[in-house]
Amino acid sequence: MHDPRVPETLEGWSVLHQMFRVRWDAWRELAAEARSRIASEAADALQAMDQGETGTTALSTLLGHKGELMLLHFRRSFDALQAAQLQVSGLGLSRYLEATTSYVSVVELGMYEMTAQIHGRLAEKGLAKGSPEFEKAFDAEMEEQRRRVVGRLFQDVPKRRYVCFYPMNKKRKVGENWFLLDFDSRSKLMAEHGRTGMTFGGKVTQLITVGLGFDDWEWGVTLWARNPEFLKDIVYRMRFDEASARYAEFGPFYVSYVVPPAQVLEHCRV
Amino acid sequence: MHDPRVPETLEGWSVLHQMFRVRWDAWRELAAEARSRIASEAADALQAMDQGETGTTALSTLLGHKGELMLLHFRRSFDALQAAQLQVSGLGLSRYLEATTSYVSVVELGMYEMTAQIHGRLAEKGLAKGSPEFEKAFDAEMEEQRRRVVGRLFQDVPKRRYVCFYPMNKKRKVGENWFLLDFDSRSKLMAEHGRTGMTFGGKVTQLITVGLGFDDWEWGVTLWARNPEFLKDIVYRMRFDEASARYAEFGPFYVSYVVPPAQVLEHCRV
Amino acid sequence: MHDPRVPETLEGWSVLHQMFRVRWDAWRELAAEARSRIASEAADALQAMDQGETGTTALSTLLGHKGELMLLHFRRSFDALQAAQLQVSGLGLSRYLEATTSYVSVVELGMYEMTAQIHGRLAEKGLAKGSPEFEKAFDAEMEEQRRRVVGRLFQDVPKRRYVCFYPMNKKRKVGENWFLLDFDSRSKLMAEHGRTGMTFGGKVTQLITVGLGFDDWEWGVTLWARNPEFLKDIVYRMRFDEASARYAEFGPFYVSYVVPPAQVLEHCRV
Amino acid sequence: MHDPRVPETLEGWSVLHQMFRVRWDAWRELAAEARSRIASEAADALQAMDQGETGTTALSTLLGHKGELMLLHFRRSFDALQAAQLQVSGLGLSRYLEATTSYVSVVELGMYEMTAQIHGRLAEKGLAKGSPEFEKAFDAEMEEQRRRVVGRLFQDVPKRRYVCFYPMNKKRKVGENWFLLDFDSRSKLMAEHGRTGMTFGGKVTQLITVGLGFDDWEWGVTLWARNPEFLKDIVYRMRFDEASARYAEFGPFYVSYVVPPAQVLEHCRV
Amino acid sequence: MHDPRVPETLEGWSVLHQMFRVRWDAWRELAAEARSRIASEAADALQAMDQGETGTTALSTLLGHKGELMLLHFRRSFDALQAAQLQVSGLGLSRYLEATTSYVSVVELGMYEMTAQIHGRLAEKGLAKGSPEFEKAFDAEMEEQRRRVVGRLFQDVPKRRYVCFYPMNKKRKVGENWFLLDFDSRSKLMAEHGRTGMTFGGKVTQLITVGLGFDDWEWGVTLWARNPEFLKDIVYRMRFDEASARYAEFGPFYVSYVVPPAQVLEHCRV
Repeated sequence: MHDPRVPETLEGWSVLHQMFRVRWDAWRELAAEARSRIASEAADALQAMDQGETGTTALSTLLGHKGELMLLHFRRSFDALQAAQLQVSGLGLSRYLEATTSYVSVVELGMYEMTAQIHGRLAEKGLAKGSPEFEKAFDAEMEEQRRRVVGRLFQDVPKRRYVCFYPMNKKRKVGENWFLLDFDSRSKLMAEHGRTGMTFGGKVTQLITVGLGFDDWEWGVTLWARNPEFLKDIVYRMRFDEASARYAEFGPFYVSYVVPPAQVLEHCRV
Repeated sequence: MHDPRVPETLEGWSVLHQMFRVRWDAWRELAAEARSRIASEAADALQAMDQGETGTTALSTLLGHKGELMLLHFRRSFDALQAAQLQVSGLGLSRYLEATTSYVSVVELGMYEMTAQIHGRLAEKGLAKGSPEFEKAFDAEMEEQRRRVVGRLFQDVPKRRYVCFYPMNKKRKVGENWFLLDFDSRSKLMAEHGRTGMTFGGKVTQLITVGLGFDDWEWGVTLWARNPEFLKDIVYRMRFDEASARYAEFGPFYVSYVVPPAQVLEHCRV
Repeated sequence: MHDPRVPETLEGWSVLHQMFRVRWDAWRELAAEARSRIASEAADALQAMDQGETGTTALSTLLGHKGELMLLHFRRSFDALQAAQLQVSGLGLSRYLEATTSYVSVVELGMYEMTAQIHGRLAEKGLAKGSPEFEKAFDAEMEEQRRRVVGRLFQDVPKRRYVCFYPMNKKRKVGENWFLLDFDSRSKLMAEHGRTGMTFGGKVTQLITVGLGFDDWEWGVTLWARNPEFLKDIVYRMRFDEASARYAEFGPFYVSYVVPPAQVLEHCRV
Repeated sequence: MHDPRVPETLEGWSVLHQMFRVRWDAWRELAAEARSRIASEAADALQAMDQGETGTTALSTLLGHKGELMLLHFRRSFDALQAAQLQVSGLGLSRYLEATTSYVSVVELGMYEMTAQIHGRLAEKGLAKGSPEFEKAFDAEMEEQRRRVVGRLFQDVPKRRYVCFYPMNKKRKVGENWFLLDFDSRSKLMAEHGRTGMTFGGKVTQLITVGLGFDDWEWGVTLWARNPEFLKDIVYRMRFDEASARYAEFGPFYVSYVVPPAQVLEHCRV
Repeated sequence: MHDPRVPETLEGWSVLHQMFRVRWDAWRELAAEARSRIASEAADALQAMDQGETGTTALSTLLGHKGELMLLHFRRSFDALQAAQLQVSGLGLSRYLEATTSYVSVVELGMYEMTAQIHGRLAEKGLAKGSPEFEKAFDAEMEEQRRRVVGRLFQDVPKRRYVCFYPMNKKRKVGENWFLLDFDSRSKLMAEHGRTGMTFGGKVTQLITVGLGFDDWEWGVTLWARNPEFLKDIVYRMRFDEASARYAEFGPFYVSYVVPPAQVLEHCRV
């Protein structure tokens, strides 16, 4: 049951990133009144999606030609995610938006170090790997961990203004293959990578979500910072960690900043 | 006739995966009555495609921007597949759908272990490879196997709710080339991969289909689970098997969940 | 003149593969009468393109989302190919078709073995490579070969029902580079590959066309079989030949089946 | 705080490159009067965006099918960049433009040599790396540097006529990985690359901007020259530097030439 | 000034290749009269672009789905190229054309051998590399060469009927990197490649243009032949030269044939 090659993970929010381009032509065809009414309806609906423990939806405004809006949905299940997706596509505003890309994932706390520690503790207790006692004790330990980190599994959307999102894979090339490394090597690399991340603790909030089995890229990284420079600094610095330099492959990057629904719609002249 | 490099295979259903995006703009133009009529007609037609032994069609609803609907057709022949494809394109609903991608394949049971066993048994009987007696005995063995596994070759669509589909190739890079491995090495890797899959037996149902000669990717993997987390777990865990870590290349991933035709159409507001 | 690195080739038909998607929206707008009239005109025109020695055009119907129709034109020259292309684009039906891809090539008989034999025979006669006598004798030998295989250079479209088309390149990667192999190695690999192909002689008809200098892929492979399973079997089996396993790169695959023009149009509801 | 693997950088302008294609069809539909009015309004607005210290916007006209116009925005912040982006999309002209691509970045002065020198000077003063005194002294040195090069961080758009823009990454392949080189090796390679660039000092002005954390490519290169031949010469010559030959990966290239707003609009018949 | 790693080059025509697809739907909407008038206007305008020494424009008709027309512009400057581009987009016909791709470049005569010879001659005269005397003598030699080959730098469009165009890069892979070879190795490979090209002297005319700094691919190759078979033969044969087999990367191939403007328009039913 507990595959020694695979780190245990704890899952939190089901997450959907959605990128939209505004169909300016159609939008401009509308009378100012209609635009205002549609925008208000959308702002109200998006505002109402912020429901604390059952989930929330954050809106940010993208720079560049990849689109104008990013919606980030945190929900308790995939069904709730799709309900959110359908609610958005049911908005009057959606006639004026084109979905350019998306990312389906769940919040994940990778537990390389913790997995090793639990195995160690259970070994100390004399439990044989794979025995029913071991499995039971393991599950209890995991449940304990889950309780401990539940706040990170179901964190609020950080309040920092600038947001960077990018998906990534671990490399599987001939000669450099993450999935062929042994557990300890991966654990060590992730620990080093984590330490670099922690030096940005006061500046950047990271969220790692996993898309394995759901989307084209294995992981999604969402970063929030008070200042766009911090986004560049953390991405640049972490690129020198071996976990990233040697083993990461990056998808497209999206930079945006968070604003309250009412304001972003005004901002985008939507 | 029996190429010692190639595992024997048994073929079942002819299969077509179709992904569709809803053309929301055109759909919204319709009066509510018209939408309702068109959706009912589609639901009835899709329901009627479930014909047991001659084939069936399953509908699921996709998450993310890649589309809203996935249709999975199981049929007895390629002609019947295309009849299904044409029946779908003839629906009133199809005016409001855009086919974004598809995968043409047949259900395949790879027989690495079985191929080796048959060769062994026939050798024990003293039959010379390639002799008419050998060929005849071989065909008889294969026919016997086919009878034994016919239920898996022509299985029903699993009843589990969440569905993951992705196409894949075996790597043919300089230094890591699946097709240059000898039969025994491939057999061993597939056996290990199979064992990992079996640890998910109670949680995930797998269907392997082969697209070689039909579509851009060599194989298609369709997974059904009661819980999306299981989809992630199996894909993540299997990625550490050498067959996958070293030799697999993955196409796009589609995650969806199955619902009865009537319900999914309602669900998608189609 | 006769570059010892390059196998001599004999060229036959100029060939154009055209893939079309039906514009269902526009087509459905038409009255049934109009559809019927346009389809008949197209069927008649395509039927009339079958002109034996001066060329022919075969129609087949594609599975999956890549399109609905494949046209395969055999002509005596590129000018005649383009005349065919223009004739098709001049059909009333073409308003309802979108050309999604194509492949421009000529039928080629690769002559690895023959090239070596001719060189051998001329050497036996004591002719010095590059001397006028050698060149003259060489040309005479080639002309003789051409006469011998003219039936294969200008073959009819095979009568088998299922058709697979895919373009391919020979690999030029660091460490595995077809074009850096010496003549004898390539000759040996092609001979092995040819033998595998011949084991399917009763089941699959192959046509190799060359697109070097004309199109993005170096070669096109068109396969005809009575049964789609044979298409999978030959592609799968040949993938283990070193010529393919180590040195081939494949483009997209198109699977279709041939029907008489009148029938396919009816079939596709075009 | 000061990661010894990462060169210190100084940041200047926030920069947005925008590429546009003219929608000729829609534009031609307009009466000559309307075209003239819309073009004048755009020319005036673009002219007014040149505001010296708070930023400027340069217009150039592209060759080839990738588009007709490139806008280059220099601003003091990302918010100001987006304000510029929205101001452009609010122009009457924007109805007749399609944004085909863009690049979001900030002006960066890479400080390989400087970083090493500062570390050296602080070591000479006996300050221990990471100590508060070291950090404070380091920050003071950086502030000093910033003051020294502020003119290059916030330079005007060069007056040279021909402009080349391309984004690039540093290679991270197995065996050749920029981010796995040690600091000194990278510093040496960048110094060599810089020297080649300096031989074009009288002919070409370079601007390096960094997109890490903001856009798909890590760096953007914008070159200005009086003569298109110089653009070719510098790109060709620098390609032989090891920093580029071995470690650079290039995105698409855009060639254009700068003209005053009024003129370019006339020029493009916009 | 004279970088010993880089071959000297001589530049001729500024060149723009433009590929167009006909918008058949819109074109067919026109009355026959209108089509005829628009086609005549375009034919006249294109004919008038043939202005000898100041430049010319050649029209050819493409095979396959990539488009119907290729325009090849030779001009004295980039400004003149863009004037040509704008003149074309100003034609009534352009409403019925879609620009699918293009290539911006200049005619280049690579001077590997010549560069070496000049260096040799100046060394014999005892001039020290980099000295003012050396530079002056070098420039004089280059000017002399330019005068000698001016006919090839500003050649007419060859009169041969069939045209093949493709862009290419030199490989920069780990282990095989053109730009890391020393000058003499590159010179030797180019000389061998040149000799193969010369064996087609009577059959194929080659034009090499350089897109470095202007377009995505480093070089463009345009070939003219009386017979499409020659195009295949030269591309196939040259692929075995080490310069190409080991070091070239190829973009898409376009095959077309030249006809006088009036005729091609008729031919395409434009």
